[in-house]
Amino acid sequence: MEDRAAMARNIQSLERAAAMLRLLAGGERRLGLSDIASALGLAKGTAHGILRTLQQEGFVEQDAASGRYQLGAELLRLGNSYLDVHELRARALVWTDDLARSSGESVYLGVLHQQGVLIVHHVFRPDDSRQVLEVGAMQPLHSSALGKVLAAYDPVAHSEALECERESFTARTVTAPEAFEEVLDLTRARGYAADAEETWEGIASVAAPIHDRRRMPVGAVGITGAVERVCPSGEMRPELIAAVRDCARAVSRDLGASRF
Amino acid sequence: MEDRAAMARNIQSLERAAAMLRLLAGGERRLGLSDIASALGLAKGTAHGILRTLQQEGFVEQDAASGRYQLGAELLRLGNSYLDVHELRARALVWTDDLARSSGESVYLGVLHQQGVLIVHHVFRPDDSRQVLEVGAMQPLHSSALGKVLAAYDPVAHSEALECERESFTARTVTAPEAFEEVLDLTRARGYAADAEETWEGIASVAAPIHDRRRMPVGAVGITGAVERVCPSGEMRPELIAAVRDCARAVSRDLGASRF
Repeated sequence: MEDRAAMARNIQSLERAAAMLRLLAGGERRLGLSDIASALGLAKGTAHGILRTLQQEGFVEQDAASGRYQLGAELLRLGNSYLDVHELRARALVWTDDLARSSGESVYLGVLHQQGVLIVHHVFRPDDSRQVLEVGAMQPLHSSALGKVLAAYDPVAHSEALECERESFTARTVTAPEAFEEVLDLTRARGYAADAEETWEGIASVAAPIHDRRRMPVGAVGITGAVERVCPSGEMRPELIAAVRDCARAVSRDLGASRF
Repeated sequence: MEDRAAMARNIQSLERAAAMLRLLAGGERRLGLSDIASALGLAKGTAHGILRTLQQEGFVEQDAASGRYQLGAELLRLGNSYLDVHELRARALVWTDDLARSSGESVYLGVLHQQGVLIVHHVFRPDDSRQVLEVGAMQPLHSSALGKVLAAYDPVAHSEALECERESFTARTVTAPEAFEEVLDLTRARGYAADAEETWEGIASVAAPIHDRRRMPVGAVGITGAVERVCPSGEMRPELIAAVRDCARAVSRDLGASRF
């Protein structure tokens, strides 16, 4: 019986190690031993034992000069391996390239992760401008077009969006629960979601849901660009909406979803 | 005294969790509980406890249909956060963009990680071709231009390159220790390394070392392209070598290295 109890428990040192990595991924990003120990309510000796093992495995690195800890290179290698087996991403590569070309805008593919949208693929806007790759970045569920699509179609994402703190990023962000539900109703009625400067000033986006063979919502795809191009005179350009929905349908079909 | 002994030991469950993630990152990539337990020599109950905790933290995901485990989305998010604090990468962004533009080829920035080169930045070849982002991928120390540069200038990379198995990827790969040392001598004498179809058939690359303010080798930058363009009639194009070395010097200066 004791064995069974031990098996049912999660492993505390692993949970603590994961909490340390989350801590180093947010906010300061370079922290000393005392900062880490006190942030997680651990004795310094306990925190040090975990950090030393994480360092040996490449999950954290210690700056030689300051002694501060930061995330390690092994996370990048493993994150890349995660993408290598991502079926949705593999199926979407060609279609998202086509969408970037036809729309002239950046294309993002996102999946639900924790309380947000994790970007698993990003195709640059096809011009010569300098752009920063956002694979691995997160977008909010309640204000981004990708997030609204997930919240509208995926019950788990819906719960997360209702439970999480819906930050008011701009004057246009919808945060009240009733108003947010209306946005989701509209999203389902139209089959796509829009974000006109609700997450970032000057930026608009359109996204549509991707379904798999069991008709489950497995992700969202969308375009993002300057509000002046994507949403001139306050209306999303219909040809962009059509191109995004075409792309989402094509990826869904490649995942085995039926046409109806 | 017991406490001290406990503190000096690494944490076994963490080491086992790291070994599981490495296992899932290589080879099969989707594994059942029994495969994982037997590969790591663990009892199934022990392996399951670790996997369940890793799953709860988002480091592994379980396929609903098959029950098999694969790497989880949290690794992508953390890998992205690792890049966000990467000083070398931040300093190199503008210079590597310029190098891709001036050379017309793909640009890679790499650092030593375990027994290889971890790609921390990749600028696509500036044409309309479809290209796969290789950030997070690894290149071999003994045959790639980036790897040879690291092995030539960084003593730790040098030891790793001599100790690791030097696989013969093509007929041109140099694998014998003496011949490899001669390649490294040549690399130091010239200030750059070349790879003409020693890692991939049809592909050539040139790379140069990046130094920091303490004159330590902290990474390598290089261009990669079709052997017909980069290395016509068996010789690396001198203007490409010059452009790569210029880029490496510019990044080094931005990191605080002196000109001499």
